[in-house]
Amino acid sequence: MIGGSRTSATALVGIDDVRRAADRLAGRVHRTPVLRSTTLGGLWDVRLDLKAEVFQRTGSFKSRGALNTVLSLPVEERARGVITLSAGNAGAAVAYAAASVGVPGTVVMPATAVPAKIAACRAYGADVVLTDGDLVDTYLATVAETGRVPVHPFDDPAVVAGTGTVGLEIAEDVPDVEVVLVPVGGGGLISGVAAALADLAPGVRVIGIEPETADVVSRSLDAGTPVRLPGARSVADGLAAPMSSQLTLDHVRAFVERVVRVSDEDVLRALALAVPRTKLLLEPSAAAPLAALMTGVLDLPPGTRVVSVASGGNVDLALFGRLPPTPREVR
Amino acid sequence: MIGGSRTSATALVGIDDVRRAADRLAGRVHRTPVLRSTTLGGLWDVRLDLKAEVFQRTGSFKSRGALNTVLSLPVEERARGVITLSAGNAGAAVAYAAASVGVPGTVVMPATAVPAKIAACRAYGADVVLTDGDLVDTYLATVAETGRVPVHPFDDPAVVAGTGTVGLEIAEDVPDVEVVLVPVGGGGLISGVAAALADLAPGVRVIGIEPETADVVSRSLDAGTPVRLPGARSVADGLAAPMSSQLTLDHVRAFVERVVRVSDEDVLRALALAVPRTKLLLEPSAAAPLAALMTGVLDLPPGTRVVSVASGGNVDLALFGRLPPTPREVR
Repeated sequence: MIGGSRTSATALVGIDDVRRAADRLAGRVHRTPVLRSTTLGGLWDVRLDLKAEVFQRTGSFKSRGALNTVLSLPVEERARGVITLSAGNAGAAVAYAAASVGVPGTVVMPATAVPAKIAACRAYGADVVLTDGDLVDTYLATVAETGRVPVHPFDDPAVVAGTGTVGLEIAEDVPDVEVVLVPVGGGGLISGVAAALADLAPGVRVIGIEPETADVVSRSLDAGTPVRLPGARSVADGLAAPMSSQLTLDHVRAFVERVVRVSDEDVLRALALAVPRTKLLLEPSAAAPLAALMTGVLDLPPGTRVVSVASGGNVDLALFGRLPPTPREVR
Repeated sequence: MIGGSRTSATALVGIDDVRRAADRLAGRVHRTPVLRSTTLGGLWDVRLDLKAEVFQRTGSFKSRGALNTVLSLPVEERARGVITLSAGNAGAAVAYAAASVGVPGTVVMPATAVPAKIAACRAYGADVVLTDGDLVDTYLATVAETGRVPVHPFDDPAVVAGTGTVGLEIAEDVPDVEVVLVPVGGGGLISGVAAALADLAPGVRVIGIEPETADVVSRSLDAGTPVRLPGARSVADGLAAPMSSQLTLDHVRAFVERVVRVSDEDVLRALALAVPRTKLLLEPSAAAPLAALMTGVLDLPPGTRVVSVASGGNVDLALFGRLPPTPREVR
């Protein structure tokens, strides 16, 4: 564990929180399948399963945390509606959560957001506020104006408990799992997954993967405190968080073996290898752990039973026209 | 049924043949999942399931027919090895079948075949014979030279019985199915699926879909006899069969409600709609039935329970860089 000797500054999410989240979410999100990938596992000399959150409601794991957060709000607070700031999967997740619970939702997005992502938020019935101006200023103004309750994409124990249900399902469905690989943006997903597994399957090694150019969790771990990385950019757009949080850092320190970095080039290579072989539409974020397997940076013993979290499948198809060629020998 | 009054010129495959095929194939091919697509179903006002043969061994349904054929050969014949002629999925399927049974396999392919498909055949251990010359001449010469047993991509009752296991699984997994949509090339897949359903679920309507520019089964039905269509080309490359056969025509006449045609443009539009929503890597052939749903040509009653056979997922990813934009209102 990373810096396991440090005292936590925040209360850690435990298995009871995760189980309560699972009860709340039952019937509102999918229990996604774990799919064996014999071919990719063979290429990389591991036994590989993908936890297929591509099939999750809204096309990513984000709906688990958003919905658990909204369902955890006191009823009178929830009735005010919810609001978030996102150019990506978290926006659709909050829009879906609001619709699922029957309260109004607002998503503040940059005007440059992918039209399909704007349309997805609207399709769930959310008000979408687009801005060419300062995103955070617009967001804060809209929060003040609407009185809706802010839902954070990761810095909330309810989000971490919600994403922990991914870990719970992995523990139940792959009892012999040895290593779990999790894409890392702000750290919400890995916090929940690792917290759940720490209790249910304490021998399991949880490893995070983040982009070299959006490595805010690695930098925060090095700094010993959450840092900001406003220039974070990656082809794995879902992982380009401009900040971490004390909450997620504390979970990573307590429960995660290590966080490794991968290049955007390797993410795209892994994507080009994985999509034709798994027949799953993966977004680049979901391929980040596969990039780490591909490059060998993880140095896992041959035959290790690995579950890689395929975190989402919301990707502009045009990207697949621009992928690097895969090496002939592994085609 | 199309021309149901005609006398069959060939013996029809029956449910017993399909059940024997299922027994032979058990453990050697996957029982693929049936996946609900709420979003696409909502767009087209049907209840839609996809029979996900994209997850089948070799990435398409073809392995079922090829393997049943090889397993049905007398042992001494089988020992000579098998051979086929294919630029596509049938080649990999025969290569896989040979490897699975432990006999040599040969695939004769045009030198212009997609490198990934050539590599796939080699990866299963098959000898690949590439030619710039006449494909059929090369094939016949290689058959004579090697003494291997030819395996036809569709004109064989063992192939039809093997593909019939798709119909068997649909009947078992979707007991309230009303309409089954099947992509049509030479007619092997729909022959098997329709034969199985005719026995197991006689009220189910089976409808075939073929490309306008590769409509050899429609033309053969019109002509009352198998015709050739050497110029058949389609973006749905798996459906561009240059010929039909008496065997498949007889099954289509006996068991299929109708065969409709779709344009390549609509196939690509349907693909651009379906892949982001299902998160499945579909090849264009698998999207042909979805194109028919999209255009409304099928004129199904609202809420009809439809299973569409997603026949395969072997596609060059670069295609997704060239898809037409989808209409904004359905994004």
